Amino acid sequence: MKSEMTKLTENDRVAELLGIRLKKVDTGYALAEMTIREDHLNGVGTLHGGVIFSLADYAFAVAVNSGGVPTLAINAGISFFKPPRGPVVSAEAKEISSGRKICCCEVEVRDEDHTLVAKFSGTGYRKPA
Amino acid sequence: MKSEMTKLTENDRVAELLGIRLKKVDTGYALAEMTIREDHLNGVGTLHGGVIFSLADYAFAVAVNSGGVPTLAINAGISFFKPPRGPVVSAEAKEISSGRKICCCEVEVRDEDHTLVAKFSGTGYRKPA
Amino acid sequence: MKSEMTKLTENDRVAELLGIRLKKVDTGYALAEMTIREDHLNGVGTLHGGVIFSLADYAFAVAVNSGGVPTLAINAGISFFKPPRGPVVSAEAKEISSGRKICCCEVEVRDEDHTLVAKFSGTGYRKPA
Amino acid sequence: MKSEMTKLTENDRVAELLGIRLKKVDTGYALAEMTIREDHLNGVGTLHGGVIFSLADYAFAVAVNSGGVPTLAINAGISFFKPPRGPVVSAEAKEISSGRKICCCEVEVRDEDHTLVAKFSGTGYRKPA
Repeated sequence: MKSEMTKLTENDRVAELLGIRLKKVDTGYALAEMTIREDHLNGVGTLHGGVIFSLADYAFAVAVNSGGVPTLAINAGISFFKPPRGPVVSAEAKEISSGRKICCCEVEVRDEDHTLVAKFSGTGYRKPA
Repeated sequence: MKSEMTKLTENDRVAELLGIRLKKVDTGYALAEMTIREDHLNGVGTLHGGVIFSLADYAFAVAVNSGGVPTLAINAGISFFKPPRGPVVSAEAKEISSGRKICCCEVEVRDEDHTLVAKFSGTGYRKPA
Repeated sequence: MKSEMTKLTENDRVAELLGIRLKKVDTGYALAEMTIREDHLNGVGTLHGGVIFSLADYAFAVAVNSGGVPTLAINAGISFFKPPRGPVVSAEAKEISSGRKICCCEVEVRDEDHTLVAKFSGTGYRKPA
Repeated sequence: MKSEMTKLTENDRVAELLGIRLKKVDTGYALAEMTIREDHLNGVGTLHGGVIFSLADYAFAVAVNSGGVPTLAINAGISFFKPPRGPVVSAEAKEISSGRKICCCEVEVRDEDHTLVAKFSGTGYRKPA
């Protein structure tokens, strides 16, 4: 089961495509970061909402799968506050509720000034093996 | 103002990065699609939630900016139902409420069998010029 | 199991407290309505968001429990568009995805002019018996 | 403007109907509580989702209106984790982002054991006077 978790989050080709780096993992916890590139921008030159979501979703997936039980996102919400300053954004994910079947995990996306750029909240479903 | 809208949605480098194609635009409406590629997949080989969100978010952005007033997503929610079958997924966005300042737009993501893969709902804020 | 569904939705004391009436039920479907009272209002004299949510949530609960399998809301989102006109508001719930364990159901809240007042989307978890 | 805020949150008849008590207010902050009554229960005898939402929404409204600028909820999401134990539930609201037009405020709903029962996140729109 450990390996299935690893499959889900270590072979994540989208994380690779976007240049997301995993910095820390613990039970119900993950910290990821990303250096903003030209092809991460929307038409007005700020970091794309889809990229911010993908970064947060990746930290979410690592955190909720950290216990070794394959866990899929069933839904997620994200609020966007302001464009990040500086080239690096981080996403810190913490499970706030962890049931046998259902869990909830929040992710704070911050820029280099540690300003809150976006807040993500996702619900995971632990798949029976 | 038309040009600002164009800037936001026509120069979208993430849409380009992911291979998103715009198929139709109308007032408060947009249809986009994408052919699934290897680098769109998560570690278990299904279409990545972040990519599905990005596709839906792009259709949302085109629809809510179609009136020519620059409109930014302030938050969004997405529910994931099942992995898509077949290589092409589409996202159809429709504004369900359009105020002077705030709008709400829903997006249905469907696969080639026309099965509902995900549902997105976003809130936009129309920026004063 | 039928009776457990009945227990959840027919003995709903909050529906009673608020004066919610069930008008129609079908598989994955429910229609409820409510006549606005003085004690449904917020401080500025419009229908309270919590009351709108409760009406929508009731229609949701009836619709997702209509199949006889006890189903609980695990999360929900609601967008508020405008205050209702006229004394009666209705909530029409339709499941848009119905899995063995997880379902998603949307509810449209409309006033007497049939104007969309609010949109609710909830996720249900089907409890193992 | 102060008085308009007061109107919105001090004359809240639904708070009265449900027995919600305001315990503390500060800038971008509110703490409310409620003693669970028979008519707050759903058909299976646990605290109704609509009542939990209403409690959280009330704390949200007080917190986002605390600055004196009339602020309305445009949308909200809530996740339900477990039924509360003990007769009293509290809702603690904190603005996590406060812009001139848009704000975001989270609310933790806890029972007497301080267990997290539900988490609410709402977006407010500051109305031009």
